[in-house]
Amino acid sequence: MFRILRRLLIGHPLDNKDMAHERLPKWKALSIFSSDALSSVAYGPEQAMLILVATPGLVSYGYLGPIAVAIFLLLLIVALSYAQVAKANPAGGGAYAVAKANLGATPALIAAAAVFADYILTAAVSVCAGTDAIVSAFPRLNGLQVDLDLLVLFFILMLVNLRGIRESSNAFVFPTYAFLFGILALIITGIVQAFAYPDALIPPESLETKPLDWAMLFIALRAFANGCSSMTGIEAIADSVPLFRKPEDRNAVVTTYWMAGILGFMLLGISFLLMHYHVTPIPGVTALSQLVEHVFGRSYLYYYIQIATMVVLYLAANTAYNGLPILLSIVAKDGYMPRYLSSRGERLTYSNNIVLLTLAAAGLIIAYKGDIEHLISLYAIGVFLSFTIAQTSMVVHWYREKRKGWIAKAAINGTGALATGIVVVIITITKFAQGAWIILLFIPAMTFIFKKIRHHYDDVAEQLSLAHKVFDNKYQGPRAKNLALVPISSPTSVVAETLHYAQSISDSVIALYIATDEEARKKIEDKWQAWNPGVQLVTVYSPYRFVIQPILDFISELQLQKCNYDYITVVIPEFETKKWWHRLLHGQTGWILRTLLILKEDVIVATIPYHLKK
Amino acid sequence: MFRILRRLLIGHPLDNKDMAHERLPKWKALSIFSSDALSSVAYGPEQAMLILVATPGLVSYGYLGPIAVAIFLLLLIVALSYAQVAKANPAGGGAYAVAKANLGATPALIAAAAVFADYILTAAVSVCAGTDAIVSAFPRLNGLQVDLDLLVLFFILMLVNLRGIRESSNAFVFPTYAFLFGILALIITGIVQAFAYPDALIPPESLETKPLDWAMLFIALRAFANGCSSMTGIEAIADSVPLFRKPEDRNAVVTTYWMAGILGFMLLGISFLLMHYHVTPIPGVTALSQLVEHVFGRSYLYYYIQIATMVVLYLAANTAYNGLPILLSIVAKDGYMPRYLSSRGERLTYSNNIVLLTLAAAGLIIAYKGDIEHLISLYAIGVFLSFTIAQTSMVVHWYREKRKGWIAKAAINGTGALATGIVVVIITITKFAQGAWIILLFIPAMTFIFKKIRHHYDDVAEQLSLAHKVFDNKYQGPRAKNLALVPISSPTSVVAETLHYAQSISDSVIALYIATDEEARKKIEDKWQAWNPGVQLVTVYSPYRFVIQPILDFISELQLQKCNYDYITVVIPEFETKKWWHRLLHGQTGWILRTLLILKEDVIVATIPYHLKK
Repeated sequence: MFRILRRLLIGHPLDNKDMAHERLPKWKALSIFSSDALSSVAYGPEQAMLILVATPGLVSYGYLGPIAVAIFLLLLIVALSYAQVAKANPAGGGAYAVAKANLGATPALIAAAAVFADYILTAAVSVCAGTDAIVSAFPRLNGLQVDLDLLVLFFILMLVNLRGIRESSNAFVFPTYAFLFGILALIITGIVQAFAYPDALIPPESLETKPLDWAMLFIALRAFANGCSSMTGIEAIADSVPLFRKPEDRNAVVTTYWMAGILGFMLLGISFLLMHYHVTPIPGVTALSQLVEHVFGRSYLYYYIQIATMVVLYLAANTAYNGLPILLSIVAKDGYMPRYLSSRGERLTYSNNIVLLTLAAAGLIIAYKGDIEHLISLYAIGVFLSFTIAQTSMVVHWYREKRKGWIAKAAINGTGALATGIVVVIITITKFAQGAWIILLFIPAMTFIFKKIRHHYDDVAEQLSLAHKVFDNKYQGPRAKNLALVPISSPTSVVAETLHYAQSISDSVIALYIATDEEARKKIEDKWQAWNPGVQLVTVYSPYRFVIQPILDFISELQLQKCNYDYITVVIPEFETKKWWHRLLHGQTGWILRTLLILKEDVIVATIPYHLKK
Repeated sequence: MFRILRRLLIGHPLDNKDMAHERLPKWKALSIFSSDALSSVAYGPEQAMLILVATPGLVSYGYLGPIAVAIFLLLLIVALSYAQVAKANPAGGGAYAVAKANLGATPALIAAAAVFADYILTAAVSVCAGTDAIVSAFPRLNGLQVDLDLLVLFFILMLVNLRGIRESSNAFVFPTYAFLFGILALIITGIVQAFAYPDALIPPESLETKPLDWAMLFIALRAFANGCSSMTGIEAIADSVPLFRKPEDRNAVVTTYWMAGILGFMLLGISFLLMHYHVTPIPGVTALSQLVEHVFGRSYLYYYIQIATMVVLYLAANTAYNGLPILLSIVAKDGYMPRYLSSRGERLTYSNNIVLLTLAAAGLIIAYKGDIEHLISLYAIGVFLSFTIAQTSMVVHWYREKRKGWIAKAAINGTGALATGIVVVIITITKFAQGAWIILLFIPAMTFIFKKIRHHYDDVAEQLSLAHKVFDNKYQGPRAKNLALVPISSPTSVVAETLHYAQSISDSVIALYIATDEEARKKIEDKWQAWNPGVQLVTVYSPYRFVIQPILDFISELQLQKCNYDYITVVIPEFETKKWWHRLLHGQTGWILRTLLILKEDVIVATIPYHLKK
């Protein structure tokens, strides 16, 4: 039953040979790697605007313009920096790999923890934003947001990724371009309308600002911090250089510039339109949906753009499914996470990691009731921290190489590191109380856990090393001596079978009977004599009717006496019942005994199955 | 930690020698065995009254008198019958034992199921009634009834019984007499007041009846059925004859008469007072509490009677703890319930059975929100069914023995069987929809389960029998041949240790490596050759990266080839980590493999513990 369901949902196992990569042309790569970055214009500018109009008495819509320009400039710096990363690391690899190579383990682990946090948030925020886009278009769905989010998360993203998908699939190419052309049409039509209509290009209320005192500065910076969520995902191309057609590095650099250009244009365009139409928050309707309605009305184009937005946002969530499981497997392979997370499942996907990501994102969505405004407070800090670490690593990289022109290159990455570092500080200060503190706790905690896990694996490796002296001496010695101990309850065919096996593994076999009263003891001794199976019977009287403790004590005593045995093997029969409920009718003594014996050293438990035929 | 808590709550283990019985004088036996029966006057008459006043338009308070008299007469018949049981069965034993001896297995099992149901209900109803008594006195506790019920059940009844108590403890003697004298004082004072005051002895509204049409008859019979709950527990003395001082049977008979006399007097007295004061239901206050307040006011005596009532009702619940675990152990010893339920725990109590009873009673209390009016609908039917079976068994007993005067004796028990049988029919019909159907489903279901369990044990006994021919031939043959198989992942000291052990139990050892890719396979083969541990290495390529399935397949193939091995022993190392969370860092492959291997026949799993030192 379970197997059939699993096959239906996940598909048949895949052979190792099926793991292959197709090289991507630039136009395809752009759409595949930029869905995360581009789609974030669907919520980034809106989240900046929300802060500026949220505080009564301090409404300062006018700051939206400067903030959009600041984000645009930051975007250019980061894009330049990442073009350098792409050139210098043709092997790809994210902040973790770059930092590990240039700065050492701790910064690399901090970067990994930061990226983990942001992948989870990418999945959560993008799914919620996608759902918001569709709910804006179909208000009847209002109230079902969290249900829709979880549905998409578990039944689309998780299942599809457990089955495994080619990153190069056309399924990724089409929606990104569909979204892109929709938004470009929106911006161009909107700008034409803005110039054609007799209204003021930017209405006066959209330019309203308060004097820039400390309180106002704090709010403006928080709006900027929220707007920075638009830049998440910009590193995706530099992380995936090996997937480009040759010359990989050049193509990746060109694509990075294209992506940054498009993203920057969309950011500025949407911010301009927000100001022109003076869009303010309406519950259940996104700002982008309001904009589209202003420009195109409730036409087919409106529904086209909303649906394309939804699809591209769900795809953006999918980039977390592409990125996190692989990063987790790399970290696990390095011994900083449980090793088994580094192995591919039957469909060549990292199944465990996919399930972990889904559960974490679902937890966030449930905890924050699918509200982007709250989730956004946790977002971006991880991304910018990993940007800073990656750019700093690059500065070290250039300094170490000292090739021709290294100072200019180091300067570019240094500027990137500085700019993104400042953003980290801004986000930390302005969104600390709103939730950034959670991420600032998570990152060091996770780093600590990484190191603890690695420490344990190092300990184990040391203990398991074949060079271990004590062992070698023992191993070179004569064949080990083994005592077989068979706890019995009464002479049955199972006991006979067990003794038969025990005699095959050792010349010294002892049958052990724990008597809970004296009569039983006498009875069993008589029976044994009558049966005479050729094995010594030892009976122990247990006045408190314990059964397991006297067996453990007996073994401890044997071990104390040394007896010249290297091992004691306790042979325990285990009943395999025909029907599941029959199992309840047999005591669990064997199972408990086995569990407790494992805690003793040099005691081996051999379980001999006895299959009941009815 | 857990051990210390356990010792504190349950106490130290007790030696078999501590199991001894004190013979009881009549006055002590009366109080110990009658708390269940006597205490039921605290709710029995009230529950009969409730039915008569509950239906608007059919209020018929006047039927209370005749019903009380009918119950009184029934009580006399049952007491006479049970006096016979006590005389004929000096060894004691309840309906199950008597029916098993005279009627056979099926009636005995039906009786056992019926008594199980009623023991659980005795615990639930008595605890609830005890709590109601104390809540009536202290209205501030209102609303906490279920919490108090569960507190008493788990933290007093369960714990005290897990510790174990002597049935002869004075803790049981005092409260029963305290209650007895309180109720007698109430009845006598009440009757004196009734005659001394100028009011009508029985007010006219207490005599109001409706004409006895079918509907009215149904209601009157249902009230009678509810009132019969007062008679539960009357069999306790006859079940415990061996605990009396000599001559046991005579003393038990006299005590039975005393108990029946007192119970009958209290029943009639309380019913008379209910009518005299025309007590009607008040939420949160029991009828008995109202009566006591009428007679004594809110005096010290009022609180004395309420507290004594509470204590004696909790003691009545305790009789279920005396009875059910022992009956369950007898039924388990006969193989109709899991055998391990028949063994005494470390404190000489049947710990499992005590916990089972507590959980079942708690489940009922929670399901019915501690409401006696609802619980009572399930009650009494089991008791009267077991009465009927026991009395019928006695008729058969007398008929078989055919001693002098057997006809008179058979007539008495026959009358008892007939009377209680009629009561069973009345309860079934009048309370069927209210909950009696649950018991009428439970009893045959339980009987079916008893037989199924016994059937399984019979099957097992047959299969385990040493007379089994096939086995004997095998056992007389030469020493069995054993192949040791060691699945490995890489050559470590653990593998070396495991091979060392494997070589001690068999001359044929195979190391098995499952390669998930071809590189790994090559690598391990080279390493093995360099290490050269003197054991054959077999590598199997698993293109789908499964690890466990190829091992199982390899074993199946070995078994098919027959290879002259009697057993295949798979030796699996198991890591014992130093800290609990380290366990999460090691895969569960070993554990899963072990679980699946047990399902194969003639495959033994030997677990060799490897203790990590840090």
